[in-house]
Amino acid sequence: MAIILGDHQYGKAENRIVRIVRDAPRHEIRDVNVSTALRGDFAAAHLVGDQANVLPTDTQKQTAYAFAKRLGRDSIEEYGLALARHFVDEVSPVTGARIEIEDFAWTRAVVDGVEHDHTWVRNGQEVRTASVTVEGRGDAQRAWVTGGLKDLVILKSTGSEFRGFYEDEFTILEPTTDRVMATSLTARWRFGTTQVAWDELYAGVRSILVDRFALVHSLALQQTLYEMGRAVLEAHEAIVEIRLSAPNKHHFLYDLGRFGLTNHGEVYHADDRPYGLIQASVTRDDAPDPGPAWHQYTGLV
Amino acid sequence: MAIILGDHQYGKAENRIVRIVRDAPRHEIRDVNVSTALRGDFAAAHLVGDQANVLPTDTQKQTAYAFAKRLGRDSIEEYGLALARHFVDEVSPVTGARIEIEDFAWTRAVVDGVEHDHTWVRNGQEVRTASVTVEGRGDAQRAWVTGGLKDLVILKSTGSEFRGFYEDEFTILEPTTDRVMATSLTARWRFGTTQVAWDELYAGVRSILVDRFALVHSLALQQTLYEMGRAVLEAHEAIVEIRLSAPNKHHFLYDLGRFGLTNHGEVYHADDRPYGLIQASVTRDDAPDPGPAWHQYTGLV
Amino acid sequence: MAIILGDHQYGKAENRIVRIVRDAPRHEIRDVNVSTALRGDFAAAHLVGDQANVLPTDTQKQTAYAFAKRLGRDSIEEYGLALARHFVDEVSPVTGARIEIEDFAWTRAVVDGVEHDHTWVRNGQEVRTASVTVEGRGDAQRAWVTGGLKDLVILKSTGSEFRGFYEDEFTILEPTTDRVMATSLTARWRFGTTQVAWDELYAGVRSILVDRFALVHSLALQQTLYEMGRAVLEAHEAIVEIRLSAPNKHHFLYDLGRFGLTNHGEVYHADDRPYGLIQASVTRDDAPDPGPAWHQYTGLV
Amino acid sequence: MAIILGDHQYGKAENRIVRIVRDAPRHEIRDVNVSTALRGDFAAAHLVGDQANVLPTDTQKQTAYAFAKRLGRDSIEEYGLALARHFVDEVSPVTGARIEIEDFAWTRAVVDGVEHDHTWVRNGQEVRTASVTVEGRGDAQRAWVTGGLKDLVILKSTGSEFRGFYEDEFTILEPTTDRVMATSLTARWRFGTTQVAWDELYAGVRSILVDRFALVHSLALQQTLYEMGRAVLEAHEAIVEIRLSAPNKHHFLYDLGRFGLTNHGEVYHADDRPYGLIQASVTRDDAPDPGPAWHQYTGLV
Repeated sequence: MAIILGDHQYGKAENRIVRIVRDAPRHEIRDVNVSTALRGDFAAAHLVGDQANVLPTDTQKQTAYAFAKRLGRDSIEEYGLALARHFVDEVSPVTGARIEIEDFAWTRAVVDGVEHDHTWVRNGQEVRTASVTVEGRGDAQRAWVTGGLKDLVILKSTGSEFRGFYEDEFTILEPTTDRVMATSLTARWRFGTTQVAWDELYAGVRSILVDRFALVHSLALQQTLYEMGRAVLEAHEAIVEIRLSAPNKHHFLYDLGRFGLTNHGEVYHADDRPYGLIQASVTRDDAPDPGPAWHQYTGLV
Repeated sequence: MAIILGDHQYGKAENRIVRIVRDAPRHEIRDVNVSTALRGDFAAAHLVGDQANVLPTDTQKQTAYAFAKRLGRDSIEEYGLALARHFVDEVSPVTGARIEIEDFAWTRAVVDGVEHDHTWVRNGQEVRTASVTVEGRGDAQRAWVTGGLKDLVILKSTGSEFRGFYEDEFTILEPTTDRVMATSLTARWRFGTTQVAWDELYAGVRSILVDRFALVHSLALQQTLYEMGRAVLEAHEAIVEIRLSAPNKHHFLYDLGRFGLTNHGEVYHADDRPYGLIQASVTRDDAPDPGPAWHQYTGLV
Repeated sequence: MAIILGDHQYGKAENRIVRIVRDAPRHEIRDVNVSTALRGDFAAAHLVGDQANVLPTDTQKQTAYAFAKRLGRDSIEEYGLALARHFVDEVSPVTGARIEIEDFAWTRAVVDGVEHDHTWVRNGQEVRTASVTVEGRGDAQRAWVTGGLKDLVILKSTGSEFRGFYEDEFTILEPTTDRVMATSLTARWRFGTTQVAWDELYAGVRSILVDRFALVHSLALQQTLYEMGRAVLEAHEAIVEIRLSAPNKHHFLYDLGRFGLTNHGEVYHADDRPYGLIQASVTRDDAPDPGPAWHQYTGLV
Repeated sequence: MAIILGDHQYGKAENRIVRIVRDAPRHEIRDVNVSTALRGDFAAAHLVGDQANVLPTDTQKQTAYAFAKRLGRDSIEEYGLALARHFVDEVSPVTGARIEIEDFAWTRAVVDGVEHDHTWVRNGQEVRTASVTVEGRGDAQRAWVTGGLKDLVILKSTGSEFRGFYEDEFTILEPTTDRVMATSLTARWRFGTTQVAWDELYAGVRSILVDRFALVHSLALQQTLYEMGRAVLEAHEAIVEIRLSAPNKHHFLYDLGRFGLTNHGEVYHADDRPYGLIQASVTRDDAPDPGPAWHQYTGLV
């Protein structure tokens, strides 16, 4: 009935790295938030305070910035793979490394109708995400990559119903055949390979998610999420599973009738809390075991 | 040496109103955050708890939603003027009303290269703002309007210097002739009239702010702000004063030399705090007295 | 190679319920944030938009508020168990329910040295947490409960070292034998039973966590976390596993020597990002399988 | 009709300084957020980019940290006065300086019933605030000081009414003789002198604010605010004016009657937005002119 150390990992979270590519007059910008985590033989640090195997989190930070030079041309997935492999290959006590990245988009400023060479405006709350997990060395080395996005806030003003639902003694909700549907989508997809055109694929997935949200006549947010996931898997062989989490950001039709005004789906109150929260995974039936692909680091608090 | 009641106001803050215009298959969306404040003869409520003159904040909320039907076609400034005038004209104890509005932008979803009729994606952290203050009735009624924006995050990767500054015994900063300059701009401008093409003017001002940030070779953020303000006043006769507040979001060149790597303005750390904060007003020398135009309600905490 | 629906759940997140117990002149307050999630036979909602099995999230909200009457006397764990069992027992399509709760503490206002009967001040950012998962009906019903806390911000100004660590070519950190150590602790512990004096146990665990942070001479945050976890398990038989996640909130000694001032561990810069992040589990070697105990709902985004 | 530079100021905002006093085994901690702003002859920086008069914001930061050694024994007001006077006295282009400070409270960890010498837990969201403005040199030098607090979240479960209010066609609110009243109080008070026992006075003011909130039977939040302000001015001669801003954090009685349950003021929904917002100043009728005392720096965005 002993007490033992269980799973453990450590790293440097939220390195705010900005990379400017300035080899030509038209600069490029990459703005990322990088978190690193190492797994391995660190029991002595926990049990007796012996740091001999502990690569400092400060060193992980220095390494993340040093490797950022390659971020200009590479995608965040390639950067993450290189960084994770470095820790596993070069730091002997490390048996696994996980890199989590948020990628903030900037749009070129338009001046006199022309995109400017070295000025950008931050666009959107929307954030592209990725995770890379690498385990083992040499021929035994394996890598798991997920892509994703979060905070994609999207709304449709019609084309959404919710009716025919299960009712019990606490059910007072009225069914509706026309409502506003809005969410702030989080999606994460798992790749079955690391041979991917990462940036093109990301643009393609994002486009499908928006397309399905707009075009599917929704009988429930559940249905919309499934249709999103299915369409992504159908279009992209490299993706074996996609996980979707979608708050139902309620827009309540405001009762103006008491003031003698009609409100035919025109004036809404956008409520903060509570919110519905719908989560689903869509997967291939032959998807390989996810291994550590979904073992989060910074998200799990 | 008596103790007396000083300035006071009250209202309903942050009414989250979404207005859908659906008269045609191509819907429109307006997504706003409306705060109302009333000023007037409310001393009895403070001094003896007598509410006879107090229009409830709940009533102000109902009124804000009821008036939202006009938001579809009108600008936020017109909506604010109508709402403020209603309170001053119709509620006898009220001598002045202030309406503050945040306007959140949405972009139509693009599906198969075509803008969708009733689906949008929230774009940007950037928020358009306005305030309306109305005092008095009938011929004595006056109105003050300000427009603005906040959280316009903008960055340039070159074209910015900072050198030749004042030095004292605590000065260790190195001068630079090439740095990243970034800010999250807040701007608010005061109108000298209420006869304005509000939406067109807003687009024009925003464009000038971005243009000046991009094109002015900056010797200091102070200079850039002044050039922004001057250009706005030169282009828009309706504006008599503009106030700008700009955090200098520091991007520190990362020292990679200790790892044998060159870093020619390529890899930066985007720091959170502290940040420089530069504030300036640019005004016409014959600008009318601002009166209550700048007397904030929700911002002043 | 078909595409199929994977794991899915849905519910109402962040019901902000305040419960006043007012049977006596000395009132009591409970202030909670309740999220509900249902698991079960909901494939038809995803696949074809059929809601016949879907208990609306609005109904889940109504139920959470209705059950809140018992919150006054009961602990959050008992409330969660009752609510979860209700969904599983009474709603036929539901095979499992998960309830996640945040509990915000209030302290009685002290007036003239005496605790007031019906006025409180919110204390701390610190939040008590719990999760309850119930699966199955009748004799086959099982329940998993976790307790926890988050945002316990704690700091010690001495008694912390970090030296003797692994070094590579990116290591520039200097070892230290005396530093500030600070964190914002998240801890979650899993119970092996539902026969627990929940509130007393919570107070006991919190006290141990603070005690160990203060008294253990720390050679690394890793060591402190393990000692925290071990002490909790040693003191509380009902707990079979504890998971700890601790950002190392860096306090950098400020270089005042360049201004001719000494700084013997007196003036620090509290940095925001990046931060170290240390995570560890401490467990009994005979702990039962966790089952769905750690399968988060609202935390996983 | 020229365009001219109006008011302007600049500085370094949000220096996160932690000061440990460790002259004895029982350490002390001060945790502050310091913002500095300089006013003076900086037109050339704005108009032509000439920095000769501009003391860098980085230098202001260094100075704030260097002066932090005195924070251990001194109050935040004394620290602010010293720092502001330094800028005005020693930096020739500076004619005025404003220092704004947030002071975060920590409570000693209690271990085995005894306060620990060097471990603390952050308590409360509540923040003590201060501002110092200094203008002029030598005999002409003047100083204005304000104290304050923000985010004091306080609630009473009875002893609050709201009825007898003004009604119009948009009024649907029901009067009540017993409701929950809750706010997150912001208060700022202006001193008529700099000869003050700052820390004792702060504790006294905070105590009065809580006392009045608890003991005044409230007919409106307006009345409670006025009683708070009056009591503070009556008790503290050094204070000449106090400004209060109080969101009415609505707690709506939840309708459980539709489920056959009584709800005698027991179960509430704590709503996020919108919220009432009540603001008032209480002042002495012979209060000196406030001068620049209320001219905010970081708050005004």
